[in-house]
Amino acid sequence: MSLEFSVTRPCRLGNVPQWDMETDVVVVGFGAAGACAAIEAAQAGAVVTLFEVASGSGGTSALSGGEIYLGGGGGTPAQQQAGFVDDTEDLYRYLLMAGGPDADEPKVRTYADGSRAHYDWLVEQGLTYKNTYLPERMLEPETDDCLIWSGSEEAWPFSGNAKPCPRGHTPQWAGWGGGRMLMDVLAARVVKLGVDVRYDSRVLALIADKANNVHGVVVRINGQTRYARARSGVVLCAGGFVMNRDMVRRHAPGLLRANEPIGSPGDDGSGILMGISVGGAAIHMDQGFVSLPFYAPESLIKGVFVNERGQRFINEDCYHGRIGHHIMQQLGDRIYLLVDSATYQQPAEFTRIGIAAAGDTWEEVEHDLGMPAGTLSATVSNYNRHAADGADPLFHKAAKWLKPLDEPPFVALDCRVDYAFYPHFTLGGLDTLPTGQVLSEKRVPIHGLYAAGRTSCGLPRWGGGYSSGMSLADATFFGRQAGRHAAASACRS
Amino acid sequence: MSLEFSVTRPCRLGNVPQWDMETDVVVVGFGAAGACAAIEAAQAGAVVTLFEVASGSGGTSALSGGEIYLGGGGGTPAQQQAGFVDDTEDLYRYLLMAGGPDADEPKVRTYADGSRAHYDWLVEQGLTYKNTYLPERMLEPETDDCLIWSGSEEAWPFSGNAKPCPRGHTPQWAGWGGGRMLMDVLAARVVKLGVDVRYDSRVLALIADKANNVHGVVVRINGQTRYARARSGVVLCAGGFVMNRDMVRRHAPGLLRANEPIGSPGDDGSGILMGISVGGAAIHMDQGFVSLPFYAPESLIKGVFVNERGQRFINEDCYHGRIGHHIMQQLGDRIYLLVDSATYQQPAEFTRIGIAAAGDTWEEVEHDLGMPAGTLSATVSNYNRHAADGADPLFHKAAKWLKPLDEPPFVALDCRVDYAFYPHFTLGGLDTLPTGQVLSEKRVPIHGLYAAGRTSCGLPRWGGGYSSGMSLADATFFGRQAGRHAAASACRS
Repeated sequence: MSLEFSVTRPCRLGNVPQWDMETDVVVVGFGAAGACAAIEAAQAGAVVTLFEVASGSGGTSALSGGEIYLGGGGGTPAQQQAGFVDDTEDLYRYLLMAGGPDADEPKVRTYADGSRAHYDWLVEQGLTYKNTYLPERMLEPETDDCLIWSGSEEAWPFSGNAKPCPRGHTPQWAGWGGGRMLMDVLAARVVKLGVDVRYDSRVLALIADKANNVHGVVVRINGQTRYARARSGVVLCAGGFVMNRDMVRRHAPGLLRANEPIGSPGDDGSGILMGISVGGAAIHMDQGFVSLPFYAPESLIKGVFVNERGQRFINEDCYHGRIGHHIMQQLGDRIYLLVDSATYQQPAEFTRIGIAAAGDTWEEVEHDLGMPAGTLSATVSNYNRHAADGADPLFHKAAKWLKPLDEPPFVALDCRVDYAFYPHFTLGGLDTLPTGQVLSEKRVPIHGLYAAGRTSCGLPRWGGGYSSGMSLADATFFGRQAGRHAAASACRS
Repeated sequence: MSLEFSVTRPCRLGNVPQWDMETDVVVVGFGAAGACAAIEAAQAGAVVTLFEVASGSGGTSALSGGEIYLGGGGGTPAQQQAGFVDDTEDLYRYLLMAGGPDADEPKVRTYADGSRAHYDWLVEQGLTYKNTYLPERMLEPETDDCLIWSGSEEAWPFSGNAKPCPRGHTPQWAGWGGGRMLMDVLAARVVKLGVDVRYDSRVLALIADKANNVHGVVVRINGQTRYARARSGVVLCAGGFVMNRDMVRRHAPGLLRANEPIGSPGDDGSGILMGISVGGAAIHMDQGFVSLPFYAPESLIKGVFVNERGQRFINEDCYHGRIGHHIMQQLGDRIYLLVDSATYQQPAEFTRIGIAAAGDTWEEVEHDLGMPAGTLSATVSNYNRHAADGADPLFHKAAKWLKPLDEPPFVALDCRVDYAFYPHFTLGGLDTLPTGQVLSEKRVPIHGLYAAGRTSCGLPRWGGGYSSGMSLADATFFGRQAGRHAAASACRS
């Protein structure tokens, strides 16, 4: 009998011919969330099997900078050494605001309370942090330093809501790409704890009974279909759906304007679809991270973004992902960053930000861009007048970034949506409790099913509030909760 | 044995104790979509049972103006009498653009080709249209006239894409509220065709086999739980989810800024949730119609909308729902409509649009609104300069609405998002084929399940493209397709 399996339809328990494998906890996906889930479950005494579709560990986490958004509890060693006292309530207020109009308060509370200890846990796993602080605004340290400003903490409106503190923690690793090192450390722990790791193993479907309680997975290993029983729980850590362009079109078509999906091939939505197949609710599926990583050089933050009508639309000192979020909401694809000779520095080559126009007056630049007289030039004139007083009454950009753009020549940098580098990934996913339990539309937990990382809708769920390190913070922390909870369920059964 | 049912979980076929009722086609919901589905199914010879949770017909359709977006094929009688030739391809291009970044091309094609004949069908059901044309811009006729401009056809960017034509058809009914009459006519047809209509009947869950093929519904009638078999299909026409504020929060939190949900209590998402429960995909769940119905009086269209930074953001001559869509994307809740003494007329009382500031110069108004000098006043100054030449280089407002706002006193009308009247409803729902068949995430039809109206994601699926009458057009037309297809399935079985 040939059975076809689909991530959109569970295999019913009655159709399982035999259990080819039995374990307590099945973890699907070997990115950061899956690794942390496996570590906690194994440490709690559960037998853990981890299926990864690729031939090695890492997932999309290994493609990242390895930066994790951490703080609270008075501060991590890096924060303290740099002179910051990071109060848990400030972290809580920042994350709540960053969660947008439907922030997940219980998760924010749990993470704010537990973030400081999570730092210690990461160190216990073998990660090292140099405990140094780089005050300049950047995407990631080019060195092996640790702490940076990685969000909109110092920018309006966040700055008025929570005392700003830098919280981006990058492990000690020279240059970009610390995510690979992060994953190697976590993967080594997973192996050391005796987790049964199966690579080249594609999970095809969940196995569920009629009431949609989850009992295991159908998995394809070496061309063979295997039925794996999970006595206590399946933890879906299979990434988001940015690589499934059909799903993006149907759920998050606004992201189609951005041109660079960030992810690994595994970010095909299969984890989310499996959760839906047994009644899980996928929420905020329209939301994504979209960025224009225009700094460093940080002097460009002193520039002014305008849309194709010469209008400002954002305080330029907020996080580049918040700026990307607002760029996507502008009518028209032409976006410019205006700078003068004192603030101009060449943007990083990979950003594909070139020069659209230059002139000795802003009127000349305005004219060269084909904008009506009195649009861009009036915007700059207004900006300059107030910047000279250290004020930005329209967008409340912080004083340290305010400088009149009055030193010719003047330049409009070309940040066209259809040409410049706009990386993006998805933030929508399965609704979960802080324990990782997947919830139905009525918010009832689905027995035996957990999710973490971008398969779930976690702390980051609103493009306007994303900060670097937030997705890894969510994946590692709530991956741990899911693994621990699934293991506890194992001990009870 | 007490069984608990949930719209989020199908009742499995094996758990059905007996069939209390048997029919060919079950229709859930007696709004426009359900009525049209029932009519077509019955006319095709199927035995039809319609369950409605309320005590009478109508649903949300009966709360509307009864206006239907119709045209193509050279024009309806009303269009032709008014001198318009409405080419099918213009209707097609308009609807495709109005569908936004993931327009449903097959549905747009089907509707454009079939809209003209759909008009005849509506007349055959007993609706009467006066075939008169009102050229003024309005929400609905206050008289029993028929044809109005009900979308953004004449406005940029739609006007450059398809030859404009008015397509809002209101049945002959004196004053607002033609939706009640529309539904009475359709309901009379339903009854005349022998459809078994059951009021006060709440469908609790779908009945499905292990492969999620749908076989019927569990329904609560007079306090009794009944198992109703649908030999060939269940058609979900149970409305949208705007009244389920938890669902709105998790899927469309952007709509929470609007303050007036438009719907009946039945718009609780139950139809969508039942579809999801058997593997149906819900798409574009973030999208909604949000309006600021600021005209009539149409002279207000000659005004200028600005956000709280004094910036324009839209051509004011587009449909009020498109303006509402863009208002929701502005930072900040303060929105003003600027008019001068020549263009000012009092907005309708129900809009709660009052006067925020007035002055003899725009600088005075700007100051009174607390805006920095040179913001609002520069916006108006630029606008006026070009309007005097009949041009709007920034937003391409059509010449007929362009008039310099230069006759004092000047007025800023207060359209605050947190106070003025912002009606809204949801546009996301189940993905369907033009036949009404509900699709999985992989776009595979779910056997025995159909959806229409706002339970489905139809022609209207993007807030920026909504036009009055589009939802009823979609509900009536694709309700018919669903009923016909389900009945054909009955004949085959």
